[in-house]
Amino acid sequence: MNFFRRSAVLGSRGLCFSTLNAVRAMSSSGGPTPPFTTLSVTHPANHITHVELHRPEKKNAMNKAYWSEMVDCFNQIAEDSECRVVVFSGAGKIFTAGIDLMDIAGDLLQPKGDDPARIAWYLRGIICKYQKTFSVIEKCPKPVVVAVHGACVGAGVDLITACDIRLCTQDAWFQVKEVDVGLAADVGTLQRLPKAIGSRSLVNELALTSRKMYSDEAKSCGLVSRVFPDKDSMIAGALEIAGEISGRSPVAVQGTKINLLYSRDHSVTEGLDYMATWNMSMLQTQDIMKSAQAVLEKKSPKDVIFSKL
Amino acid sequence: MNFFRRSAVLGSRGLCFSTLNAVRAMSSSGGPTPPFTTLSVTHPANHITHVELHRPEKKNAMNKAYWSEMVDCFNQIAEDSECRVVVFSGAGKIFTAGIDLMDIAGDLLQPKGDDPARIAWYLRGIICKYQKTFSVIEKCPKPVVVAVHGACVGAGVDLITACDIRLCTQDAWFQVKEVDVGLAADVGTLQRLPKAIGSRSLVNELALTSRKMYSDEAKSCGLVSRVFPDKDSMIAGALEIAGEISGRSPVAVQGTKINLLYSRDHSVTEGLDYMATWNMSMLQTQDIMKSAQAVLEKKSPKDVIFSKL
Amino acid sequence: MNFFRRSAVLGSRGLCFSTLNAVRAMSSSGGPTPPFTTLSVTHPANHITHVELHRPEKKNAMNKAYWSEMVDCFNQIAEDSECRVVVFSGAGKIFTAGIDLMDIAGDLLQPKGDDPARIAWYLRGIICKYQKTFSVIEKCPKPVVVAVHGACVGAGVDLITACDIRLCTQDAWFQVKEVDVGLAADVGTLQRLPKAIGSRSLVNELALTSRKMYSDEAKSCGLVSRVFPDKDSMIAGALEIAGEISGRSPVAVQGTKINLLYSRDHSVTEGLDYMATWNMSMLQTQDIMKSAQAVLEKKSPKDVIFSKL
Amino acid sequence: MNFFRRSAVLGSRGLCFSTLNAVRAMSSSGGPTPPFTTLSVTHPANHITHVELHRPEKKNAMNKAYWSEMVDCFNQIAEDSECRVVVFSGAGKIFTAGIDLMDIAGDLLQPKGDDPARIAWYLRGIICKYQKTFSVIEKCPKPVVVAVHGACVGAGVDLITACDIRLCTQDAWFQVKEVDVGLAADVGTLQRLPKAIGSRSLVNELALTSRKMYSDEAKSCGLVSRVFPDKDSMIAGALEIAGEISGRSPVAVQGTKINLLYSRDHSVTEGLDYMATWNMSMLQTQDIMKSAQAVLEKKSPKDVIFSKL
Amino acid sequence: MNFFRRSAVLGSRGLCFSTLNAVRAMSSSGGPTPPFTTLSVTHPANHITHVELHRPEKKNAMNKAYWSEMVDCFNQIAEDSECRVVVFSGAGKIFTAGIDLMDIAGDLLQPKGDDPARIAWYLRGIICKYQKTFSVIEKCPKPVVVAVHGACVGAGVDLITACDIRLCTQDAWFQVKEVDVGLAADVGTLQRLPKAIGSRSLVNELALTSRKMYSDEAKSCGLVSRVFPDKDSMIAGALEIAGEISGRSPVAVQGTKINLLYSRDHSVTEGLDYMATWNMSMLQTQDIMKSAQAVLEKKSPKDVIFSKL
Amino acid sequence: MNFFRRSAVLGSRGLCFSTLNAVRAMSSSGGPTPPFTTLSVTHPANHITHVELHRPEKKNAMNKAYWSEMVDCFNQIAEDSECRVVVFSGAGKIFTAGIDLMDIAGDLLQPKGDDPARIAWYLRGIICKYQKTFSVIEKCPKPVVVAVHGACVGAGVDLITACDIRLCTQDAWFQVKEVDVGLAADVGTLQRLPKAIGSRSLVNELALTSRKMYSDEAKSCGLVSRVFPDKDSMIAGALEIAGEISGRSPVAVQGTKINLLYSRDHSVTEGLDYMATWNMSMLQTQDIMKSAQAVLEKKSPKDVIFSKL
Repeated sequence: MNFFRRSAVLGSRGLCFSTLNAVRAMSSSGGPTPPFTTLSVTHPANHITHVELHRPEKKNAMNKAYWSEMVDCFNQIAEDSECRVVVFSGAGKIFTAGIDLMDIAGDLLQPKGDDPARIAWYLRGIICKYQKTFSVIEKCPKPVVVAVHGACVGAGVDLITACDIRLCTQDAWFQVKEVDVGLAADVGTLQRLPKAIGSRSLVNELALTSRKMYSDEAKSCGLVSRVFPDKDSMIAGALEIAGEISGRSPVAVQGTKINLLYSRDHSVTEGLDYMATWNMSMLQTQDIMKSAQAVLEKKSPKDVIFSKL
Repeated sequence: MNFFRRSAVLGSRGLCFSTLNAVRAMSSSGGPTPPFTTLSVTHPANHITHVELHRPEKKNAMNKAYWSEMVDCFNQIAEDSECRVVVFSGAGKIFTAGIDLMDIAGDLLQPKGDDPARIAWYLRGIICKYQKTFSVIEKCPKPVVVAVHGACVGAGVDLITACDIRLCTQDAWFQVKEVDVGLAADVGTLQRLPKAIGSRSLVNELALTSRKMYSDEAKSCGLVSRVFPDKDSMIAGALEIAGEISGRSPVAVQGTKINLLYSRDHSVTEGLDYMATWNMSMLQTQDIMKSAQAVLEKKSPKDVIFSKL
Repeated sequence: MNFFRRSAVLGSRGLCFSTLNAVRAMSSSGGPTPPFTTLSVTHPANHITHVELHRPEKKNAMNKAYWSEMVDCFNQIAEDSECRVVVFSGAGKIFTAGIDLMDIAGDLLQPKGDDPARIAWYLRGIICKYQKTFSVIEKCPKPVVVAVHGACVGAGVDLITACDIRLCTQDAWFQVKEVDVGLAADVGTLQRLPKAIGSRSLVNELALTSRKMYSDEAKSCGLVSRVFPDKDSMIAGALEIAGEISGRSPVAVQGTKINLLYSRDHSVTEGLDYMATWNMSMLQTQDIMKSAQAVLEKKSPKDVIFSKL
Repeated sequence: MNFFRRSAVLGSRGLCFSTLNAVRAMSSSGGPTPPFTTLSVTHPANHITHVELHRPEKKNAMNKAYWSEMVDCFNQIAEDSECRVVVFSGAGKIFTAGIDLMDIAGDLLQPKGDDPARIAWYLRGIICKYQKTFSVIEKCPKPVVVAVHGACVGAGVDLITACDIRLCTQDAWFQVKEVDVGLAADVGTLQRLPKAIGSRSLVNELALTSRKMYSDEAKSCGLVSRVFPDKDSMIAGALEIAGEISGRSPVAVQGTKINLLYSRDHSVTEGLDYMATWNMSMLQTQDIMKSAQAVLEKKSPKDVIFSKL
Repeated sequence: MNFFRRSAVLGSRGLCFSTLNAVRAMSSSGGPTPPFTTLSVTHPANHITHVELHRPEKKNAMNKAYWSEMVDCFNQIAEDSECRVVVFSGAGKIFTAGIDLMDIAGDLLQPKGDDPARIAWYLRGIICKYQKTFSVIEKCPKPVVVAVHGACVGAGVDLITACDIRLCTQDAWFQVKEVDVGLAADVGTLQRLPKAIGSRSLVNELALTSRKMYSDEAKSCGLVSRVFPDKDSMIAGALEIAGEISGRSPVAVQGTKINLLYSRDHSVTEGLDYMATWNMSMLQTQDIMKSAQAVLEKKSPKDVIFSKL
Repeated sequence: MNFFRRSAVLGSRGLCFSTLNAVRAMSSSGGPTPPFTTLSVTHPANHITHVELHRPEKKNAMNKAYWSEMVDCFNQIAEDSECRVVVFSGAGKIFTAGIDLMDIAGDLLQPKGDDPARIAWYLRGIICKYQKTFSVIEKCPKPVVVAVHGACVGAGVDLITACDIRLCTQDAWFQVKEVDVGLAADVGTLQRLPKAIGSRSLVNELALTSRKMYSDEAKSCGLVSRVFPDKDSMIAGALEIAGEISGRSPVAVQGTKINLLYSRDHSVTEGLDYMATWNMSMLQTQDIMKSAQAVLEKKSPKDVIFSKL
């Protein structure tokens, strides 16, 4: 069921790539990972999956294939007990130019249906399908670190707001582009961006005027938590963060992601109740004893070997 | 039904004011626009309505007339298909000193009713009426850009947190004043301020101590998205932002405002469902085709002529 | 029912400590206030209660006694009509090292129950009890100003996110530690931290990697609203803020806290309705008249004498 | 502000109509009460307002005038401190045939707008306006007893589900008619009917097949709480129930309606919190002392004279 | 910690009372169980606790002592691992006359506080305390079967709507009495009654007119699920139902109660998510294997011995 | 994509089966419809799909295959524009005996995972998968009429509460069986049953004691809306209801189902807003004009030919 390429080296899973090698390996990725045509999936280090949006010749624009491949890819990752954390980035010169309008124009501009009600019905199906493409990132319990370089436009913003940790390069910029083409953004930006950053005035300004936001403002408003000088250092940084996460108990990490998302959408009282119900089983893990012992022995959590989850 | 003054020049609507002229025109506004006594309503440019709080001799304090005029004014704007965006500012030396205590003292300090329960009933009616005065800004689907200079005190903060984009001058300051006069702010600040800025500790400090917050802190905490050196440059900036918005598809812009507000008050899942239901009709607009064509022809969205909404 | 130590000086309640003396008094606290063994409770000034986490020899680690003493302490404060605001800090070299693992290891690591379901039932009871320890701070209607110096680790973060205003020293650092010991934080951090600061990416990074955050980042992300050079100046600052709060109408202040918390967990519409229902009685206080008169007479609200609440 | 006809007899308000006379008076109503053209408003007894849908020659079909007159009428009733309860019924042979399709066909079948998105915008405005027509019944804090005879079709069901107490005659029948004309009911039936009766299977059957439901099934499923042999006895019964309500403390009665509606749409915990916040003022009414004394003196609450609310 | 009287016979817990004996034992209860003064607590059979409201000479009116004893009693029951189900009934001639107005008149009619706001604050505390008295029944995870004979008035309705299964005698009647004494019911009836029965019209009629509802209507509207000819047969019936419940896995039973209550206050989607999170630990109980085996062996679940919970 | 068997007769779709023939056809179904092994799918009349649970030799117990086939089947039905309504019933002597414990015992009783936390994770996945099996019925916008004969046990109750209209035979009985085997029902009954019938006391009794409920009580409590003397007459009745539904505008019918479900889980205000947003496109259907014309011409809606949806 898991048809991701795993290099021989990773087969052993005992050997840990140096971060530098990992970055190099990632930069030299040859193309999409079959059966995918828009995504490259590699394993730069133990328990870390790297997903790369890989249509560099099309500025990583999201075509029809992309919308369903993302769902397949993240469903597999969700099931893959070897994977504990995901790094997501874009191949080529920019992160993504957003939707590939040419490719999906037919769906949106020549919709099916005999009257506006039936066309509406058809369009609703399309929108829901596209929304699922990004929601699948949140449904996957493994944390996703997204690394943005260059342009991140339109649906790119929808994508990154569904990720857990956002990093970018100095030259990155972000643009909520939808109003420019006559529509309200409908695959996540209007829902998730206001919950990702603190300034409501800024969110409104970005969404209503489609002005570009550059990396420094993205950092100061909290959209990204770190800015790196260039893509290589960013990927190295992403791998380092991913390494911190993959080295910790998957019971703890995945429970944390699930409950952080639950809290976003519920009152504190509701969140606490859910948390208690969650942890009444999860505190029965051996990982706590293993981790506590590591603490006593002054070891890093990363030295502990945790069972599969 | 729409009795706003429209100058002869704007009657044609084909001619576009230069921003500079617009600013001058706005600065020289002669007084309230009848039948209003506290608001001046002008049209500095195509599709842009400028509402000015206009009691400069009373520091723009909000008197009884104000509370009902705001509702009438924004209900008209909501219906006015010529208007696509609103700029809101204050005439005279400061934005607003808040509630005109002298004028409304009777209502609050000599409430009607034979016992505390009946007085409570009466007061509840007053509070709800005042709350509506600001909620009407959110119910109006046209984005509202508010421009603050000098003091913005008490009910002024309630007012601006109900607007969509907040700008201010270097000399502006903000004060949640209500605890100073013995009451918990009850017309919006306690509800909207925490959702407008990211730092909960700061919100609490402002609301519990009524200390002043100056423009630099307002910018860094995200309450305003831009600070201008003086009122003239701020109005010019507000008009520029308004111009960006008014030049885009009203179907896209107003759908964006409505869904951004919906998202604030719902979970992401709920917001996405509503968005899909919204756009199943709105994606059937010709504006998308018109806008897409403009993109292909390297034109600005502002060069497209959109139908009335 | 109230067995807090009140010094003779404070018995009169007319005399106001100078802030400096207050700080000295606070620094020289001799130990826990019986019957508490982990908390010292003093009254540095009129209407101000100072609660100090007091196990300095154990780095203020939270042991079994602590979990129930907090509940007793804040329930008493909630009932104490002399108290209008609370300052919370830690005795000794750091704020807190978090849970005292040695002391409570038995509860968590040797849970009772014949099968995993029964153990789950038992653990759920423990978690809920611990959650209440911090929720009691929110249920207490008096604002709580927390002052952090040195380390604030694990359950310490749970604690401070339940407080209303957060201050820290230059040398303070914060760490969401739970993933390091194999569990998802379950007594409040995952629920309250995302609602305390604006950057979701940062929240996720902190919770998933357990990296330390230092005072400057804590300030820029909005976790704390002020940073002080050292503990003494911080306590002085905390007392000053507390003095601003205690000098204002308790009807206004406590209604503000209750409604700010309500707003966090409800939509704006719901919050406004609750607020109107709240204030239909609270606007009938004499405090408004008293405060308004003080304003007219150019007095500070702090010169007004308010009735007990 | 209140321009309802009040007969000379009712002017004194001390005199109580016998129920029989009241019924006769109600049956002989001569026509709509100006300025209304579709509603007759009378006062058959102290504190009771009777609103009659009055287009008998058109089977009380709801035309354009009706939609705005209902809003005006119930807003006035909400403000009328003499009124404590409302009886609502239909003049002529049946309760109502529902929407007057001929009259409003233009609005729905020839909607305004240059493209489907703009038409959608226009239609949304119409729907929301019609929804308000019935929601105004719930917003009015005085209980509304609705008395149905003969047919109650389409929008008639929307109307009665917004009322508080439902009565009908033996010959009454109910029909959710909308699917028959190609639309999902959009002014309240789908929202309120499932919360008015307990059997979800029945609700679905009625709404999906538009079959008629007769009075006996309406009684057994709980849609109506009483069935009367004919219209006269039903009106007498409605007035008797109304008399029970109008004779009790308006503080108690209106607080009960408001909180019952609040509870319908919230969790029990939320409802209890709101209730406590509501009653912290309302328990300060003199009505409690007056009522308690009446109980001690073995009097009926109806012998107590309550102040205006 | 558990100071309930347990007869020597029950000490063994192996012996099962015949239902008839149990009924006799329950009827002959000699008075309140110390330290309670208003409640008698007995154990008529294995795992069954019988709580009797015991002020027969005062028609079981709820006095001050009652309000706190209920909380203590059900908190103990919640902790008592021997108890798996509760039967609740009233001693003497009727179930309860509701609040003992004489006893608590001081609290409500002479409230403390210097102005209406402070009195409101005080009253809110009282209301919340009284609300907790009944909410404690829902918080207790053991199902509560309530058996009503004769009158159940006012606060009695609040009480029984917080129980899980309602039974009554032929001569029982129910009355939402609060509007008769000038207040909206504020300790649960308005929140829980609409969620206990299906007919909203009936709920409104009962709450707004305070008319009596007799046992047959109580059965047909679903308030009670069974009617018995007299008190003895009802108690026998209650014990039989209780016996069915106590004989089943406490993991299953208590999880069922908790999730049924959760579902009442949440959407189906939310309820399903919570349920899955709950059962991910609870399905690990040995009770499933034990019960499944009993099924295979054609035994009753009551023949299985389950561990304590 | 649609591989349902369609008989040659139905290929024309113009010809309408007599109900009697349809019933006969349904009774003689030869077995599961490949590729299904547990479901038989036929088309007894135009626009009507009949799904039969088809493991009669196993009392229609739900085995592993069933859980995924239901999802596939209803996803296909959702996409099948020929289908407008579904009838669901059981083949053989009873409706269903519930879960096939033998078949799925391995999943539940020998769960995978190295510690209770990991087993919990695994079990949560299983539960969620099973929940989806029934939720898929609600996600399918076509109404589902379920017809129950004989026993409906355990998961059978979960199944039918997810259907829209419930019918049964005189000999039918229902049993919430889960507590008998040591678990709280976790695939829908505890969430949906309380929202399907009005009596909370009855719901609790059924779920806590697992007693059987027979057809007459099922009818009087509202679980089913009709009872038929035997299976043949019930299937005929189900087809008749289905015919009423399939003959009406699919835009109206499916919009009604979707909004009825939305209303169940939201407040009335929320439901009305969603409804207005929904119908702003759906009112643009030609079906309204077609249906209105049929009404004017005294035709049945069933004589109208509606476009595909």
